[in-house]
Amino acid sequence: MKYAKLIVDESEHNSDMRYACGFAAPDEFIFFELPNGGERAIVMSVLEFDRAKAEAKPGVNVYPEAQFGASGTIDELFRIAAKYSLDGFSVPAGFPLLLADGMRTAGLSVIAEPGEFWPGRQFKSRAEADEIVKALRATEQGMRRAFELIAAAEIGADNTLTLDGAPLTSELLRSAIELEFMKNGAAADSTIVAGGVQGARPHCEGSGQLCAGTPIVMDLFPRLRSSGYWGDLTRTVVKGQAPDIVKKAFDTVFEARENAKKMMRPGAVPADIHNGCADFLAAAGFHTGNGKNGAFGFFHGLGHGVGLDIHEAPRVNSRNRSALRGGEVVTVEPGVYYPEWGGIRLEDMVYITGSGCECLTTIDTFLEIK
Amino acid sequence: MKYAKLIVDESEHNSDMRYACGFAAPDEFIFFELPNGGERAIVMSVLEFDRAKAEAKPGVNVYPEAQFGASGTIDELFRIAAKYSLDGFSVPAGFPLLLADGMRTAGLSVIAEPGEFWPGRQFKSRAEADEIVKALRATEQGMRRAFELIAAAEIGADNTLTLDGAPLTSELLRSAIELEFMKNGAAADSTIVAGGVQGARPHCEGSGQLCAGTPIVMDLFPRLRSSGYWGDLTRTVVKGQAPDIVKKAFDTVFEARENAKKMMRPGAVPADIHNGCADFLAAAGFHTGNGKNGAFGFFHGLGHGVGLDIHEAPRVNSRNRSALRGGEVVTVEPGVYYPEWGGIRLEDMVYITGSGCECLTTIDTFLEIK
Repeated sequence: MKYAKLIVDESEHNSDMRYACGFAAPDEFIFFELPNGGERAIVMSVLEFDRAKAEAKPGVNVYPEAQFGASGTIDELFRIAAKYSLDGFSVPAGFPLLLADGMRTAGLSVIAEPGEFWPGRQFKSRAEADEIVKALRATEQGMRRAFELIAAAEIGADNTLTLDGAPLTSELLRSAIELEFMKNGAAADSTIVAGGVQGARPHCEGSGQLCAGTPIVMDLFPRLRSSGYWGDLTRTVVKGQAPDIVKKAFDTVFEARENAKKMMRPGAVPADIHNGCADFLAAAGFHTGNGKNGAFGFFHGLGHGVGLDIHEAPRVNSRNRSALRGGEVVTVEPGVYYPEWGGIRLEDMVYITGSGCECLTTIDTFLEIK
Repeated sequence: MKYAKLIVDESEHNSDMRYACGFAAPDEFIFFELPNGGERAIVMSVLEFDRAKAEAKPGVNVYPEAQFGASGTIDELFRIAAKYSLDGFSVPAGFPLLLADGMRTAGLSVIAEPGEFWPGRQFKSRAEADEIVKALRATEQGMRRAFELIAAAEIGADNTLTLDGAPLTSELLRSAIELEFMKNGAAADSTIVAGGVQGARPHCEGSGQLCAGTPIVMDLFPRLRSSGYWGDLTRTVVKGQAPDIVKKAFDTVFEARENAKKMMRPGAVPADIHNGCADFLAAAGFHTGNGKNGAFGFFHGLGHGVGLDIHEAPRVNSRNRSALRGGEVVTVEPGVYYPEWGGIRLEDMVYITGSGCECLTTIDTFLEIK
């Protein structure tokens, strides 16, 4: 049976499409790849044809819609199947159902791939790792700017922070961080700057005036405008003096992260690394569970792959038992969260090498900013 | 038969999901709505449960995954179907095929909706229109900043533009524009600043040093960070003196846009407005076709709906024969493009009212900047 791989989507947010064609286009188009290393091609509207010719990955042919009739997607796919004598199409898990049902009704076979559509995406070439490092450097510039502003802030009588006489807020820090991203060719969908108990909700963006003596979780993840690769970095700091429980949590999470990084190597099982980290945190007194104020402790995965998607394979969590392999780029981000005082999360990125891992993150990790 | 509406996706980029639940979450979750105005609910992981409780739209119940077993999406959907005695689910056109096939194999009926999943999204409440206007004001601030910088630029002996002694590039203008967006609570995926012949490709982002005497197409479309609504605005300017053909193109496109806005009212057929515009441009000598350098003339739709997506229903193009209705927000953006000298595109946004339309765009339209 002769099946071609097929994607029908835009390539700004669909990273399988971007990986396939090599450029970002905002409107849906067709990509197909014939079996056994055969032809790879895209079919573009008049509006995008010239740009696609100029920007598509080497080796990807660019056809105008008129080549395949252009009277609707199903009709085009029919003509493609006929031209190349295909038995059907193999498509990504997220392929649109209405189109698939229409194709099947029209007699085209469509099979959704249960795994990664491009397994190669998980293993980064040195050139791809360089793009991720470039994104991470932009991320670190944003973090440095945040550190500077927190250092320059003054502590009021009620512990609130001010900068040049105005309240130092999550919003102000976020703007300053994202301006640094922009200067470095990157942009963020969202940026977490969550102070105090807001930091106990790991995905809370954070808002309002920040305070001394309580942790500020900053999770920064911008995307390079040029190539589409992401950086990911989390630090947690306290302006002034940290309470003892926060210091203990910081030291424990720091050690958990360093231990986990030492275990990141080809052949290591992500679930084992995650579970070892959870056990370590619990043994230090940082237990996980559900209370009347919601979840507490360590209740997210230890890490995730990063590439053209901010979250991609491999996942480093309690469920993934597929061994790590060279070329993968993953985050290592243990954290503990308690509604009573907030959260601590510390995140680096590593590149799995032939024998271990290389830490891509270069910015320091510390708790207190005087 | 009792079918519930169902979406399984994240809500940062899936606007049907955002419209349904009212907040932006980066990871996939379940939304369902029982028939006949019945219960609406989302099912959240431990990681997002607390935030969802705090941020979900009024009237949307928030369940923890554990409520429905949490041993995989299909299992959860089975338990939801059982609890509410459902015969199946009605899902958006873009629902993921692998999940749908898995549900069907497991005995759950799944029907993909051929049209808009939430037809109400197309008709904006006054509160939604206000959000779009807020986004458009941020967009206009970006455009004003670009006008200022072009006005301040100096023309070199070779017609190239410099600002404070450095080349004035597409990249520099884009950064300045996007900084204005940021100051106004908005962010852009991409921003078109295309000078000279680059402007003849409508989706070319533009790069390199800009020149006097040749059109600069600026198409700005940022999204409000808070509510997720978009603004969309295009102006085309020339620094210094415009050539006669560019002046004639500008005057013609300007008149085409004003004529089209006058036709935007409930009951008007989008295809008629688009075709009238194309005829007007052709009658003025701006013909459409395909040459050895690619497409030329007016080869995109006259406009599109704007809301939580930058491109949504209704489309204003040669194919859409569904009459306009009150509450729709659409762009009106005729343009002409010629590989020999570049492009002219002029875009406003209108809100269809009970009897006509209200132009939401307030910034002036002019060609030359001295």
